Amino acid sequence: MSDEAARPSADFVFGTLATDELRIARLRAARHGVAHSNAIVPLDPRPGEPVTVQVTTGPDLAAEQVACYYTVDGSDPRGERGVAANGQVVLLRRVGVEWDTLLWGYVSQWAGQIPGQPAGTLLRYRIEAWASHGPAQWASEVAGVVAGTPPEGVDSADLALFAPPGSPPLWPVRRLASYAYHVDEEQVPAWLRDAVIYHVFVDRFAPGGGQGFHEPGSLGGFFGGTLRGIIERLDYLAELGVNCLWLSPIFPSPSHHGYDATDYTSVEPRLGSLEDLRALTAAAHARGVRVLLDFVVNHVYRGHPAFMAAQADRAAPEAGWFTFTRWPDQYLTFFDVREMPQIDSDHPGAAAYMIDSARFWLAQGVDGFRLDYANGPSHAFWSQFRAATRAVNPASITLGEVVETPALQRSYTGRMDGCLDFVLMQALRQLFAFGTLGPSGFAAFLRQHLAYFPADFVLPSFLDNHDMNRFLWVARGDTRRLRLAAICQFTLPHPPIIYYGTEVGLSQRNDVRAPGDRGGLEQSRLPMLWGSAQDAALWDFYRRLIGLRRERPALWRGERETLIADDARALLAYRCVAGADLAVVALNVGDAPHSLDPLAADGCRLSLASDPAVTWDGTTLRLPPWGGAILIRSEQ
Amino acid sequence: MSDEAARPSADFVFGTLATDELRIARLRAARHGVAHSNAIVPLDPRPGEPVTVQVTTGPDLAAEQVACYYTVDGSDPRGERGVAANGQVVLLRRVGVEWDTLLWGYVSQWAGQIPGQPAGTLLRYRIEAWASHGPAQWASEVAGVVAGTPPEGVDSADLALFAPPGSPPLWPVRRLASYAYHVDEEQVPAWLRDAVIYHVFVDRFAPGGGQGFHEPGSLGGFFGGTLRGIIERLDYLAELGVNCLWLSPIFPSPSHHGYDATDYTSVEPRLGSLEDLRALTAAAHARGVRVLLDFVVNHVYRGHPAFMAAQADRAAPEAGWFTFTRWPDQYLTFFDVREMPQIDSDHPGAAAYMIDSARFWLAQGVDGFRLDYANGPSHAFWSQFRAATRAVNPASITLGEVVETPALQRSYTGRMDGCLDFVLMQALRQLFAFGTLGPSGFAAFLRQHLAYFPADFVLPSFLDNHDMNRFLWVARGDTRRLRLAAICQFTLPHPPIIYYGTEVGLSQRNDVRAPGDRGGLEQSRLPMLWGSAQDAALWDFYRRLIGLRRERPALWRGERETLIADDARALLAYRCVAGADLAVVALNVGDAPHSLDPLAADGCRLSLASDPAVTWDGTTLRLPPWGGAILIRSEQ
Repeated sequence: MSDEAARPSADFVFGTLATDELRIARLRAARHGVAHSNAIVPLDPRPGEPVTVQVTTGPDLAAEQVACYYTVDGSDPRGERGVAANGQVVLLRRVGVEWDTLLWGYVSQWAGQIPGQPAGTLLRYRIEAWASHGPAQWASEVAGVVAGTPPEGVDSADLALFAPPGSPPLWPVRRLASYAYHVDEEQVPAWLRDAVIYHVFVDRFAPGGGQGFHEPGSLGGFFGGTLRGIIERLDYLAELGVNCLWLSPIFPSPSHHGYDATDYTSVEPRLGSLEDLRALTAAAHARGVRVLLDFVVNHVYRGHPAFMAAQADRAAPEAGWFTFTRWPDQYLTFFDVREMPQIDSDHPGAAAYMIDSARFWLAQGVDGFRLDYANGPSHAFWSQFRAATRAVNPASITLGEVVETPALQRSYTGRMDGCLDFVLMQALRQLFAFGTLGPSGFAAFLRQHLAYFPADFVLPSFLDNHDMNRFLWVARGDTRRLRLAAICQFTLPHPPIIYYGTEVGLSQRNDVRAPGDRGGLEQSRLPMLWGSAQDAALWDFYRRLIGLRRERPALWRGERETLIADDARALLAYRCVAGADLAVVALNVGDAPHSLDPLAADGCRLSLASDPAVTWDGTTLRLPPWGGAILIRSEQ
Repeated sequence: MSDEAARPSADFVFGTLATDELRIARLRAARHGVAHSNAIVPLDPRPGEPVTVQVTTGPDLAAEQVACYYTVDGSDPRGERGVAANGQVVLLRRVGVEWDTLLWGYVSQWAGQIPGQPAGTLLRYRIEAWASHGPAQWASEVAGVVAGTPPEGVDSADLALFAPPGSPPLWPVRRLASYAYHVDEEQVPAWLRDAVIYHVFVDRFAPGGGQGFHEPGSLGGFFGGTLRGIIERLDYLAELGVNCLWLSPIFPSPSHHGYDATDYTSVEPRLGSLEDLRALTAAAHARGVRVLLDFVVNHVYRGHPAFMAAQADRAAPEAGWFTFTRWPDQYLTFFDVREMPQIDSDHPGAAAYMIDSARFWLAQGVDGFRLDYANGPSHAFWSQFRAATRAVNPASITLGEVVETPALQRSYTGRMDGCLDFVLMQALRQLFAFGTLGPSGFAAFLRQHLAYFPADFVLPSFLDNHDMNRFLWVARGDTRRLRLAAICQFTLPHPPIIYYGTEVGLSQRNDVRAPGDRGGLEQSRLPMLWGSAQDAALWDFYRRLIGLRRERPALWRGERETLIADDARALLAYRCVAGADLAVVALNVGDAPHSLDPLAADGCRLSLASDPAVTWDGTTLRLPPWGGAILIRSEQ
């Protein structure tokens, strides 16, 4: 196993957490000063339920008291040394002291309880810590990290967190944290659990109107996909069996990807019109297919009118939507992309603009949102966002893109319906494409992963997306590996996502296959294959797999049990039991054939084989190299 | 602040935990596979008290069941997949799953309860985890780490923990862990709380009989200190005010330090005889002074008869006392010192030898033991050791040298009476010698440090010892800093230790003062200063400080409150209240004079000043640069 392959992040997915150094900086920052990290119990408060607020104070802080000020009338909670100015206050107790070997210091844990509130309450709170002999310090969050010489007043301990000795200056912009949660009885809409999602990169899917794709000079050009093109392909998608579309951003934007919008309530003319979008949702709904939009709250294009107003006039109302470190030319951005100024989602004007825009789209008929870079905006913002969008359409959903730790993802419970499952994607690629994880490690991961998240939080699964090399490409074109990965993905309890073209063998063009290669960012967005360019056998496999998942929920809804997780034989097998229904899945992730007998699959029939060489005689399952099968016993 | 100075371990105290890399390796190893780390609640079970056993299973392990097998009859607990072979079994429940960003994986937490047991029970236990589809794995502990090519059968994941990609091979020797705890009502003997301990490095303290020190060719030679010499200086020590001696090892050994013994029940002839030791304890006791021996269970000298027998005959009973990785010439050692083969403290023969030896010394009149490298032997061993030694002398004590995290130190609660306080020593040196920690950071550290440990665990404080540069030397000879550090040390709630000579200005000879310099190991063991070579003013300061501590327990027994922790003014002040008694301590750790007014010290008088320029008029305390004071109000 090479060094590169041994690193779980060799696939360059978790860019901000790819190395030990980055992870340590993250852990240090998370425990610096007064830290809350939106840690409330329960994560999703119901009406009348008291909420425990958890806080830590770091090794640097001699805190003797911690207070939580809160309001329920929407006003900004304020106070000083335990005395509330406009709302209520809860004094926290020190409930523990822990030694942190990495920080080489102590971290104190504090907790206090906010009384239960009626449904519909948006509870806002702030947290203050102090010692009788020192100044107060408020819980803050890092709004962004800036390279270059820090201005006066940046805490030196904070600086050291992000720029260890010897590195170039890198300083955090901290923001007094305004926390909030919404008290309601919302639950994940049932349809989302049954969804099979198809992810369309609009410019690259279907030009429509009998047109072919454009041939721009580079992969960053416009290929000509449109909303009308998608409408024309709805029968294709319905035949495949998917029941939900996720469209890449459709708002006006200068780029082919659209993640840099200049307007949030119209359609990019290249892609079509508002009429087209309405027609698409209507046609999709007629086929039982829902439609999700890709929604970017974290940042806008610098040509967005709000940012232009902010840059033109420091006193403009929109100036507060952004974080200028030196007006007008230095401001926080999406990573280091100057073209994408970052929105301060806690600014009331910015928040209202984003929420109103989302409500507008729900009124046009869309069914929910995939939330781009959802860890950018605050948790308080997402609490308001979900409450406001649910008010328009109670069955609408929100799914966050949080390319981050499961711990952070879980913290969005009650604020979103779920998060795209990046760590699962990483594990699937390690097992089925890279071979850097064995069946036993995967089984261990999966068991704990599924147990880690609350039941009312959805983790849509995927093998790849538009921001990473395609699975088929990292699997070196081996469709056997893709089929096995897909069988595994579709027999998991969370809704699967298919990135457009995966079902017909769309891969990449370049030959650079080093694990760390990032060329895939554009290479993974090649135009959809249509007609004879499609791998018909693979398409048929996917169609049957989707059909099985939709017809036999026992495949993924029942009680899971690992039967085989054998690294030496490279075999993974598990079963799923729901009442009298039984599904057994067996996957051979190695280069030797195997006979599996017995397999605890009495009375099962072979429902899906990844390979014609798979055989099942009712007792023995024979799997060729990189072959897999789904066996099913049903009382229906 | 230089990079070196910014690192808390620049002082090279925590050699095994000095860098992020080492800390990460430690954290990874601690969560690898089935890990227990002696985590029981309560730490010190009383008769009839149920004990919760806590276990973690790491990201690599698909554990579905965890069992704890235990016996109360001394036999080795065994079992398989939840069925006990010779004792009882407790099945643990999975009580949580946590995401670990550093490991980039999940860790499952398990817990189960062992019923309460009667006093005197030595409860032995082992822990097994398994999944229905895989082999069982037992909780193990790393017995040692070996450089060089690993033999067949060493777990590759385990290897990667200690040798990250790119480093030379380093492999852990794991040992099936045999855990134990002792059920009793033991408490820390009261005298230890009131102790002021004087640490004698015997070869370097006093030759006695009118002789001067030898003048060996190197600092590693013999300087001629003896037990008789100590007896002759008991009046000196009693006048100073100390009431407990800790003698460096006195058993036969080829070295000047004695930490490599060849016999555990006689006295090294250079130092004296068994008679001398008896005379010393008797003479000390007559002056109200107790005597502790330095006891090394972790390793012996390779010339010890047991090791010679083990090397001569693989079938010898003593062969099991050691861990041969390739008999007879490869074996686990104290770090990489081949002359010091490591003892397997779980081997019944080795354990009996060590415990019988300790009991022998208690019978000679000694009052307890400082336990060298106490994190080497197992927790199970120390549970037996304390029970056995208390049976001989109920007031005898044990203090561990655990140069490790507070978390590990705390885990010895109920197995030892306390541990030498290495992290406090580090913080004291950072504040008073290196200037790398400010008053507010020190106050934050101290508050949490004192809260972290249970009440029945003693943490003797010290500024230096024989294994590091002397405090006065790292303070560049500035006795003002030493006095401030001593005032702080002597007003803490745990018993202070004075390393011989500190009270009269003994320092080092060499000029190398780079923070990372390790020359101090031998330089810190220079011969004691006697007569006119002593700093009489410093001695008098120490005498008064010790007297104050012994006469006014309110100084350190009461409720502590920080009054000032001001980094800008470099001031630290705190008070300690016990009933009507009040002590206020103020320390100026900067180069500017300060007037402190008001100081919440009404009715106090100036009991001790570190400097003649300190003044107190009942309202205002004036402190010169690097000056400090103790103010006291007493109703007595």
